[in-house]
Amino acid sequence: MNPIFERQSVRKFLEKDVSETQIENLLKAGMQAPSACNQQAWEFIVVDSDEDKMAISQMHKFAKPAADASKIIIVLGNLNEAKISSMIEQDLGACCENILLQATYEGLGAVWLGFHPIEDRCMKIRKYFDIPDYCIPFAVICVGYPAIDNGVKLRYDESKVRYGGY
Amino acid sequence: MNPIFERQSVRKFLEKDVSETQIENLLKAGMQAPSACNQQAWEFIVVDSDEDKMAISQMHKFAKPAADASKIIIVLGNLNEAKISSMIEQDLGACCENILLQATYEGLGAVWLGFHPIEDRCMKIRKYFDIPDYCIPFAVICVGYPAIDNGVKLRYDESKVRYGGY
Repeated sequence: MNPIFERQSVRKFLEKDVSETQIENLLKAGMQAPSACNQQAWEFIVVDSDEDKMAISQMHKFAKPAADASKIIIVLGNLNEAKISSMIEQDLGACCENILLQATYEGLGAVWLGFHPIEDRCMKIRKYFDIPDYCIPFAVICVGYPAIDNGVKLRYDESKVRYGGY
Repeated sequence: MNPIFERQSVRKFLEKDVSETQIENLLKAGMQAPSACNQQAWEFIVVDSDEDKMAISQMHKFAKPAADASKIIIVLGNLNEAKISSMIEQDLGACCENILLQATYEGLGAVWLGFHPIEDRCMKIRKYFDIPDYCIPFAVICVGYPAIDNGVKLRYDESKVRYGGY
């Protein structure tokens, strides 16, 4: 099974718990991503209280799936740990993708909710979870057992590929 | 085989050609990444002339692996196609990671060379490949058959995980 071509954004979840081992596997996958100068400037907050999940779900209009996720991973970028802070978004993008792919691999569903660099969203989540100034509240990944299978759409578009130059 | 835990940065390649089908599979994987509002604002230039590979290898001090790669994928972000341009780095980070993982899955080796947002690097590659102003020269991925196996280091670090808040 190649999770790259099986992954889909899952926004509805069954009432079934994702285990701590599964979350640990997702975090292991996230931390296995490449990063600029191998800076690995990522940190994570794992959320599983209903109150906290509900709070996240109300932070922006696309955040509703947080309400019935089994667990949530908040992905942070620690600017104090970054050697090349201008590349931290790229690193964290790769990290989030690994988490989503590992979720697929584990038979779970997940959705990536964007926060950084949208000021209003970042302010809300920073305040709620006491995230310090030197950490970017980058993204929120909702995880659970999928309640719906929307199927995977292949996105390959030949017209986006050039050869030898633009 | 879960490519997330098998991937390593490969900087030395055998003199053996990567096929067009393999490159197409890598591009399919890249385009399968999630993106903000599904904007898919990525484009790609495939490079396989020795002259062009040599030119890339001299664009910055970490770009040397380009010289003996079999093929190179330049990953671009098209700002004209972006709905949320402030999230394009995240999208392209996920896209690059998919390409690297697919390379691993195919038994190939690859390395991600950072370009954006380092001005000097971007200017050189933009000029050489006639990349228009509305496209970000995001990153270069060198692909080939690996000449060396450095082994995979697991990067999991428990101290980077918090529960319920920072």
